[in-house]
Amino acid sequence: MDGSVAPNAVAAVSQERQWDRLMQMAKIGAIPGDGVNRACLTDLDRQARRLLISWAEKLGLAVSVDALGNLFLRHEGTDPTLAPVLTGSHMDTQPNGGRFDGIWGVIAGLEAVQALREAGVRTKRPIEVVAWTNEEGGRFAPGCMGSMAYAGFKPRDTWDGVADNEGLTFGEELKKLLASEADIARRPLGVVEGAAPFAYVEAHIEQGPRLEAEGLDIGVVEGIQGSRWFIVEITGKTDHAGTTPLKLRKDAVQDMLRAIAALNELMHDPDDVLRFTVGRIEVNPNTSNSVADRVRFTIDFRHPDKAVLTERGDAIERVIKGALKTGEATVTERFHALPATFDPMVPAAVETAAKAQGLKTLRMPSGAFHDAQFMVPLCPTGMIFVPCRAGVSHHPSEYSEPHQLAAGARVLTAVLADLANR
Amino acid sequence: MDGSVAPNAVAAVSQERQWDRLMQMAKIGAIPGDGVNRACLTDLDRQARRLLISWAEKLGLAVSVDALGNLFLRHEGTDPTLAPVLTGSHMDTQPNGGRFDGIWGVIAGLEAVQALREAGVRTKRPIEVVAWTNEEGGRFAPGCMGSMAYAGFKPRDTWDGVADNEGLTFGEELKKLLASEADIARRPLGVVEGAAPFAYVEAHIEQGPRLEAEGLDIGVVEGIQGSRWFIVEITGKTDHAGTTPLKLRKDAVQDMLRAIAALNELMHDPDDVLRFTVGRIEVNPNTSNSVADRVRFTIDFRHPDKAVLTERGDAIERVIKGALKTGEATVTERFHALPATFDPMVPAAVETAAKAQGLKTLRMPSGAFHDAQFMVPLCPTGMIFVPCRAGVSHHPSEYSEPHQLAAGARVLTAVLADLANR
Repeated sequence: MDGSVAPNAVAAVSQERQWDRLMQMAKIGAIPGDGVNRACLTDLDRQARRLLISWAEKLGLAVSVDALGNLFLRHEGTDPTLAPVLTGSHMDTQPNGGRFDGIWGVIAGLEAVQALREAGVRTKRPIEVVAWTNEEGGRFAPGCMGSMAYAGFKPRDTWDGVADNEGLTFGEELKKLLASEADIARRPLGVVEGAAPFAYVEAHIEQGPRLEAEGLDIGVVEGIQGSRWFIVEITGKTDHAGTTPLKLRKDAVQDMLRAIAALNELMHDPDDVLRFTVGRIEVNPNTSNSVADRVRFTIDFRHPDKAVLTERGDAIERVIKGALKTGEATVTERFHALPATFDPMVPAAVETAAKAQGLKTLRMPSGAFHDAQFMVPLCPTGMIFVPCRAGVSHHPSEYSEPHQLAAGARVLTAVLADLANR
Repeated sequence: MDGSVAPNAVAAVSQERQWDRLMQMAKIGAIPGDGVNRACLTDLDRQARRLLISWAEKLGLAVSVDALGNLFLRHEGTDPTLAPVLTGSHMDTQPNGGRFDGIWGVIAGLEAVQALREAGVRTKRPIEVVAWTNEEGGRFAPGCMGSMAYAGFKPRDTWDGVADNEGLTFGEELKKLLASEADIARRPLGVVEGAAPFAYVEAHIEQGPRLEAEGLDIGVVEGIQGSRWFIVEITGKTDHAGTTPLKLRKDAVQDMLRAIAALNELMHDPDDVLRFTVGRIEVNPNTSNSVADRVRFTIDFRHPDKAVLTERGDAIERVIKGALKTGEATVTERFHALPATFDPMVPAAVETAAKAQGLKTLRMPSGAFHDAQFMVPLCPTGMIFVPCRAGVSHHPSEYSEPHQLAAGARVLTAVLADLANR
């Protein structure tokens, strides 16, 4: 393969159209400072999906949805019986999120397909653009429910009872979404009810500082580090803050401090490769003049090495329980994903396409977690990263330049044309 | 004074009637486990006040309300021009509160006045039963707004802009309350618009373990320890939990840990007299896979010795700022009450009345904070404590026996009869 793979289609990629679509999407759930708060299965999510569907239908793509709400836009191949090449990402955001994380991978997929069609490029295999349900996990934890169910990683009803902060459950909210899309064709749920794709490629902003710092255009992603997520609940006893001697207290906040301090020790990594985060804390009754009787906090632990992930992750419960002085702890692992290494096929196609377009590339792992993780057991998988300013994501100031995103879409276009003709 | 002070009135105190009124009140805002959640200026608060007003009007007491919503039930004296003896407490509860904290002091005042009236005891001075607005500070911080404004400790509009968790302000909610009580006579606001009382006596459950542990009936309170309340806000930077190396983070949760650990050192007290509590924590954005960019937490610091309260309280900001590694902190003192020592007059009256009734007493400071604090500069002040089970308060399991509460009401009756004839 060289620069001659679908050069007309690559040339048909429109930086302006892609940017305009991203900005239209960014209005749906806009928050101050150019941010977006568009949680999955909300009215805003439904609006964003409708907008995407309207663009796809205008283009003549076949739109369908599966039992998890994963949304597919199909560009037909010359042989419709062949397994499709799948591309896409997600449309939901973090509560204080930005305009590019996730949504760009969907819009880039649409842009690539539109460019192929406008250039008159036919491919043997169908190309499907997917928008996965609930990648972020901000409203309903954990994230990646849509891709996990698609891949058969977990049964489809696994999260039906998961409730958001208002007590609404994932199952009920999903039902509402599907009812609102009764006009959209239903399709089998991934490999559980259907067949595997031929390949999967996901375009995404880097969400880290490397590409920008090194003046590069395209990250050729070779794999994703593993993740383990835990919820810790510490139970103490509430008391009057003014009367109860400290020696008689079972203060859950103070026990939380001891637990996190011990976890900091456990997770210490001089190489700074390990990622350990306590990002969510909830205190009960959470009033200034009552000793807390219950604290919940989350642990987000990631590492590219399976051995480290297993050894330190398995030590978490013991370390916490050993650190408590007065209360009791329950530790629940709510998510466990091993490190994923991509089959070389898609990374090679990404690298070749980028180089043919004169772009500077870097082979790298993904520090962040993506739906691509769950495609790895199903088919050759890859990701295309573009730089983002200062590595910031999950924040309103998240930003990639229009030309950086256009370069990513051009690489994606060539990769899709390449893979869909294999 | 001896057992002959108003013996008929003391005998007219009804244990059953007082208990029944407490249980009626406990239904308004009842929560599981015999608890009560009745925040100030809510519909539930209005219901409770209406119930109290209905009892007072049936008894023939004159009901009035001031600009802060403090509610007064007046038993007229033979000389209405004399400064009244004031008794009472508050009707609001903690979010996960009990059936006795505050409300008993109001109901006991009503019971005492009813007993005096039924026994035909006239007093020279009027006796007023007061229900202070927002003692707990659970919905609108700080607490004791009603008594602070009454005493002229702070201007009456000080807290108008204070918002609850839903963004409703104290000022607007107070307006609504006053509008709903348009049928109730208005009165001047305490010493700001009117005159000081002759004396103030507040009946309250101990909220600590001493009386029960020592088998005693009545706590003769001699003063209240001082309190300083702070809000600390730590600002860092949010980042993706999966990609950002720990060395590049400004994790507000980790800085909070450092700050509280340093405060624990500062507040260490081998005698266990000092009370230091972090009871409320709020994290932003509070999602498991984002590094926190902002944490707010509260400090509740109390001590009976002014020197300790001043020295360690003044060190808080410096200690926090010295403990942070990556972020910045602002420390705001939102409440500062010096230790209060009561004039000996009321404690002596309480002790004399209790002993005349054959009750076992203990002279003690109050560990908890009370509206009585703000009456100290205005007039001779005192408090009557009764035991509560295991010292528990601010919790549904808060409990005092009906006979313990009746003993407290009998002492209050004798004290009011005594003071109102001076």
